[in-house]
Amino acid sequence: MSPADPYLHRYATRAQGMTASEIRALFAVASRPEIVSLAGGNPDVTVLDFDEVADVAARVIRERGASALLYGGGQGLGEMREQLTGVLAAEGIRARADDLVVTTGGQQALDLLARLFIDAGDVIVAEGPTYVGALSAFSQYQPRVVHVPMDSDGVVPEAMADVLDRLRAEGVKPKMLYTIPNHQNPAGVSLTEDRRRAVLALADAHDLMVVEDNPYGMLDFKHETRTPLVTLAPERVIYVGTLSKIFSPGVRTGFVLAPHAVRDKLVQLKEASDLCQSNMTQAIAEAWLRTQPWREHVRAFTELYRERCDEMLSEIEVAFPPEAHVAAPTGGMFTWVRLPEPIDTGALLPRAINARVAYVPGRGFYADGSGKQEMRLNFSYASADRIREGIRRLGELIGDELELLHAFGR
Amino acid sequence: MSPADPYLHRYATRAQGMTASEIRALFAVASRPEIVSLAGGNPDVTVLDFDEVADVAARVIRERGASALLYGGGQGLGEMREQLTGVLAAEGIRARADDLVVTTGGQQALDLLARLFIDAGDVIVAEGPTYVGALSAFSQYQPRVVHVPMDSDGVVPEAMADVLDRLRAEGVKPKMLYTIPNHQNPAGVSLTEDRRRAVLALADAHDLMVVEDNPYGMLDFKHETRTPLVTLAPERVIYVGTLSKIFSPGVRTGFVLAPHAVRDKLVQLKEASDLCQSNMTQAIAEAWLRTQPWREHVRAFTELYRERCDEMLSEIEVAFPPEAHVAAPTGGMFTWVRLPEPIDTGALLPRAINARVAYVPGRGFYADGSGKQEMRLNFSYASADRIREGIRRLGELIGDELELLHAFGR
Repeated sequence: MSPADPYLHRYATRAQGMTASEIRALFAVASRPEIVSLAGGNPDVTVLDFDEVADVAARVIRERGASALLYGGGQGLGEMREQLTGVLAAEGIRARADDLVVTTGGQQALDLLARLFIDAGDVIVAEGPTYVGALSAFSQYQPRVVHVPMDSDGVVPEAMADVLDRLRAEGVKPKMLYTIPNHQNPAGVSLTEDRRRAVLALADAHDLMVVEDNPYGMLDFKHETRTPLVTLAPERVIYVGTLSKIFSPGVRTGFVLAPHAVRDKLVQLKEASDLCQSNMTQAIAEAWLRTQPWREHVRAFTELYRERCDEMLSEIEVAFPPEAHVAAPTGGMFTWVRLPEPIDTGALLPRAINARVAYVPGRGFYADGSGKQEMRLNFSYASADRIREGIRRLGELIGDELELLHAFGR
Repeated sequence: MSPADPYLHRYATRAQGMTASEIRALFAVASRPEIVSLAGGNPDVTVLDFDEVADVAARVIRERGASALLYGGGQGLGEMREQLTGVLAAEGIRARADDLVVTTGGQQALDLLARLFIDAGDVIVAEGPTYVGALSAFSQYQPRVVHVPMDSDGVVPEAMADVLDRLRAEGVKPKMLYTIPNHQNPAGVSLTEDRRRAVLALADAHDLMVVEDNPYGMLDFKHETRTPLVTLAPERVIYVGTLSKIFSPGVRTGFVLAPHAVRDKLVQLKEASDLCQSNMTQAIAEAWLRTQPWREHVRAFTELYRERCDEMLSEIEVAFPPEAHVAAPTGGMFTWVRLPEPIDTGALLPRAINARVAYVPGRGFYADGSGKQEMRLNFSYASADRIREGIRRLGELIGDELELLHAFGR
């Protein structure tokens, strides 16, 4: 048992309930090389040529050091935002550099948006499961998160309508919908075209702001594009993007596309939070997008992940119990598995790590305690061989566990 | 007049009072090259050899790209924290790498500390004037900031005792003292040794946490060191440091030294805010500290600023009215001027910019509306010639203004 925290009585109310997760402690162990980690969310940056990145970095520091080494403005460098409009164009979104705010990855965008919009007790509607980092960002501002179920076509509009009607009957007016419409983290699915319109019609009917988080849009296994929500309802939808999955999370470059009134508030909050984005990483990311064939890299990332995803799914087919439900990802970096009762993926994790394989238990992806039988598996980082080996280890463990649980009558 | 903000009704309570400052709009204009800016807070990074920075950056990306381009942990890279213990040692502080959390500059450290400790209505005691960025960071969490006056030896302990007694009489228990004991921003003064002990005795008597913010400690014009508060009361004092003034603000590398219970909470808040510090800038900053003679650069920064400070003070002596009170900085990057009644430095700024010189009006450095006659002048960024020219323009303007105000009997 750890000793009582002597600072506990000094913390703000928002921090009183913060507890160190046991999963975090396990993951510290899980970084050992003999463990196949299907737990993380790292891209495989070996797709890039590090020498080229090094050359770009050296060139911008040598030539633009007097700017790259200094403070910048709260909105982000103009040249950086200009290049980001090119990324948006590739997603089918027309925007001007002045419409954007650069943030420390998509994560800071979520933090700043929650800080701007969420009072304690406000309701956020989100997919269930949803991105665990969004739940952490939001929880600092003490909202109530209400989930809407998904199927293989993304959010189910009828279920969303039910949830919103139920809230209205309770006298609750939800503040926003948070959604990852493309290759969702963790569920791996994408919202179909028809449903995009249906979801936005519901947002209209209930006067919801929509936060459209799109880190994975371009990592589509069939190289398809889908209509961004923000193009359908620009005054209602705030769009969050990032270079973490198409270039590198090491440059920590995310951005928000928002109506100007909201953009101005975000710039003020950004400055209060950390003064400004790093001019150095912005200069490097800007020069990278401007001088390198980044769309080819995106294609290379996507091909690699598609192959690894196929390997993972085919090995799961063999190694996991037939009752396991496995999502067929449309793209991105993750698949989502629901195991049969009475498995508890949280309780199973320590033994998985003993068996030299790691995953993320499902419960962290829900704000309401669901997800006990679910798990997220990452296919973007480990090699195909390691993925097959990891899935075999996991399948064996799950088989043993089910046998044991059934033998003891649960 | 700008149109009403259509999103106003959606914002959280904490954001309702946020207004775009007029000063911000003026500074956008003030970046034109013909204007001598004494307003900013940038170091003069031309002290560094950009080719060397470029070489260090290229080397770490080439050799450690697989880590530098990925996500890192919420506490910051171990090697980075190891090098930061060397920076702390140069300040007279013994710490272990595990005691530190890396943040996006010192600014994010202040944001996270306020988020951890401050409920709406909590009282923060701070020097008056104090760092404007600390006030922005704190204000997001809606505290009441109560100032304690300084003289040329820093915070006046007797005045601090009065403030604390008055609060106690009101039944208010302040949460923390925020202080910049060395070469204070904006006042330019340092807390004397005796007073350090007196201030900590008061913190003990009133059970205050102390946040010791030390961006400028090593920029001492006489190369003196002062006893860090954290070494005198390690369980009471949380220490914030940064590389922004001894290397580059472009790497956005700050850090917090805190007791482990607090450190753990800060890591969780950091992850919720932006997942992790950039591995790329950390790898560059770490390699810089490890391989370059950074203490020589600190000496070069300091010598340069001392010369420019001397130029500024001697020109002020000639150009400003004799009733102006000017701080004699012990180091750092700023001096602080109090002009005679009835000058209003806020009202004067637009005309100063017309006269091609910029400064920061005093009011932003107080939470209570004080500072009308005061201004902050920066001497770290403009060349000595530009500083002399800027002070001459400012002196002339102030002279004209006083003449005008007196002529109209005001």
